[in-house]
Amino acid sequence: MKYQDYFRSRLDTLRDEGNYREFAELERHRGAYPRAKCHSGEGDVTIWCSNDYLGMGQHPDVLAAMHEALDRTGAGAGGTRNISGTTHDHVLLEAELADLHGKEAALLFTSGYVSNWAALGTLASEIPDCVVLSDALNHASMIEGIRHSRAQKVIWKHNDLEDLEAKLAALPLEQPKLIAFESVYSMDGDVAPIEAICDLADRYGAMTYLDEVHAVGLYGPRGGGLAEQLGLMDRLTVIEGTLGKAFGVVGGYIAASAELCDFVRSFASGFIFTTALPPAVAAGAAASVRHLKASCEERTVHQARVAEVRAQLDAIGLPHIENPSHIIPVMVGDPVKCKFISDTLLRDHGIYIQPINYPTVPKGTERLRITPSPVHTAQDVAKLVTALEALWTQCQLARQPIAAQ
Amino acid sequence: MKYQDYFRSRLDTLRDEGNYREFAELERHRGAYPRAKCHSGEGDVTIWCSNDYLGMGQHPDVLAAMHEALDRTGAGAGGTRNISGTTHDHVLLEAELADLHGKEAALLFTSGYVSNWAALGTLASEIPDCVVLSDALNHASMIEGIRHSRAQKVIWKHNDLEDLEAKLAALPLEQPKLIAFESVYSMDGDVAPIEAICDLADRYGAMTYLDEVHAVGLYGPRGGGLAEQLGLMDRLTVIEGTLGKAFGVVGGYIAASAELCDFVRSFASGFIFTTALPPAVAAGAAASVRHLKASCEERTVHQARVAEVRAQLDAIGLPHIENPSHIIPVMVGDPVKCKFISDTLLRDHGIYIQPINYPTVPKGTERLRITPSPVHTAQDVAKLVTALEALWTQCQLARQPIAAQ
Repeated sequence: MKYQDYFRSRLDTLRDEGNYREFAELERHRGAYPRAKCHSGEGDVTIWCSNDYLGMGQHPDVLAAMHEALDRTGAGAGGTRNISGTTHDHVLLEAELADLHGKEAALLFTSGYVSNWAALGTLASEIPDCVVLSDALNHASMIEGIRHSRAQKVIWKHNDLEDLEAKLAALPLEQPKLIAFESVYSMDGDVAPIEAICDLADRYGAMTYLDEVHAVGLYGPRGGGLAEQLGLMDRLTVIEGTLGKAFGVVGGYIAASAELCDFVRSFASGFIFTTALPPAVAAGAAASVRHLKASCEERTVHQARVAEVRAQLDAIGLPHIENPSHIIPVMVGDPVKCKFISDTLLRDHGIYIQPINYPTVPKGTERLRITPSPVHTAQDVAKLVTALEALWTQCQLARQPIAAQ
Repeated sequence: MKYQDYFRSRLDTLRDEGNYREFAELERHRGAYPRAKCHSGEGDVTIWCSNDYLGMGQHPDVLAAMHEALDRTGAGAGGTRNISGTTHDHVLLEAELADLHGKEAALLFTSGYVSNWAALGTLASEIPDCVVLSDALNHASMIEGIRHSRAQKVIWKHNDLEDLEAKLAALPLEQPKLIAFESVYSMDGDVAPIEAICDLADRYGAMTYLDEVHAVGLYGPRGGGLAEQLGLMDRLTVIEGTLGKAFGVVGGYIAASAELCDFVRSFASGFIFTTALPPAVAAGAAASVRHLKASCEERTVHQARVAEVRAQLDAIGLPHIENPSHIIPVMVGDPVKCKFISDTLLRDHGIYIQPINYPTVPKGTERLRITPSPVHTAQDVAKLVTALEALWTQCQLARQPIAAQ
């Protein structure tokens, strides 16, 4: 087989479909975020699609903690968690995270992807005869973890309680069950009916596994996520979160009972056989979590900025998915136009919004996923909306009816 | 099902077998490594089991690069590589790594584990009808990646060329094939016959995938690994490495043709759907790679220190696996004794060597895996060997015949 030719032909297919991904090469200006230098030749740009939702990746406390840890203890952890890689900073961060979610324990992973893959994969494969009931729109990392476990999987319609209940009822009551779902779905920004899902879990003897990666830091009085905001943290078996989005650093975790965390710690290949995160990363993440436990200001300004962008898009009739979260998906519905708009925003307006195409979203639902943050100014918003309006006209894209003012 | 009871009973079984893992909580003293504070109550200890083989996690250039990047650009990358997470520092590091291995391109992952899992998983699943020929002692991350792909897998006896050839010959010549193996095997420290494997690959039309995680930075004139030392880098299809061991930071990568890297970049779930490493991590890793390309001193002193420890162990007849690498596995062969020796070394001698038990090594081959580094002094070595000798006597463990002096 001619391997190189095969790779080339698959890449050509992606290009022909408009689904070939080109990465923008960015360099943020510390202290001036959302401004960044774009090394692809466009000079300075304003980032409008980051998952550093609150700008915590620039927070002085986070940076000070990372500098301090580098000075105190050096760069890497030097080993797996078991073999010399558990540092004081990891232990402190895990305690901070357990406290954030009101759980007995937390367990760190190198990324949110790995936390889902390893935790779901281990629970589903190690609990005999376990069946996983997985929301149809769960993140790739959850799907891959469940797939990897080779456990029985039942997919229920996205956010559909009736379908979930029918599928639970069809299983033997005594069979171990795990309901896996997210609180805020990243691409549409819609949210799960967490309480009703917990009720069903209780009724049918299932564990619950809630991915809060797009909610931790952002919702709840201490940033514990949507489950905290709704007073439901104690009803969830596992809460999974990330340190790489609202907390602004990198890494993932689960929070759960001491036994469950110890079980995953002891049996998860993706936890055991990998070098631990650098202590400076753990220290920075802990500083971020601590800050957002005590300060609501970032969350308040964030929500206000999101509302402002939505209102201005509504005023000019730009179609975006209504949802109760902070994610604003502006729908284009075509991969080539989506990329054209993104390219033009970058080149002519200094606005960076990556086009979101297949496989991240289904074909035909290509979009610009806008994530306002507290560090965007009113001027940034005005500039964004003006540029989008001009491009909508240029591309002859449909608008929504404009509500009476 | 009573989930908590189930977790507890599985953990109890681990405890009964002596395979329950307790993590030492360490805090390195920057600039004084291998010294660290042990927060489990033992005060200061000397670490003898780290994979920060050269002490690069403490190198001033690495730390300066990380401080500089934090000041310049902030903490996290803020997104996946596709959605705002590709930074200038990632691009520079990938160029540095491609150059290190004499390849057209390199692709970064959040860890070595993920690089193996995602790259092998993607190649094996996306190339139609691909069969993976996997060395029997490959690392968990490779096994999991191959398993995940659901491709046909053929396991060949560890380092056994005859068996590999028999298995290659039994497959249709036109079937796509990928031979996956390591250069230095972490637990026994033995090395693969890389050249002969490449010859077989050529003969049978197979790609080669070489995991060099325990060799990059350590072997070859520029630290390109064992394949560089042997002048074989151009004969390998994929070289996989880590930034978390000899390079002292965290992260993993593959280096290969531009098309292969682009293919994995475009189709690997574990690459696409995960937040990029922090730019400061990329900058620190790049500084480390650059330093070790230019400086051989760390490698020279490292090899001398390894030889010194081996010679002193031989002088008192302590059994260790002979191998051509820098890893010294001192064999105990019993999980309870192994843990006892490790605990006593820590408590009475201030020496930290984690016991290596199942599932990291097969039951019955429990060991102390000693990793000398250039930052260990002659005094450190003397103290280590004296302590081991006392414990060997106390535990009535067998010795090797002592060679005539």
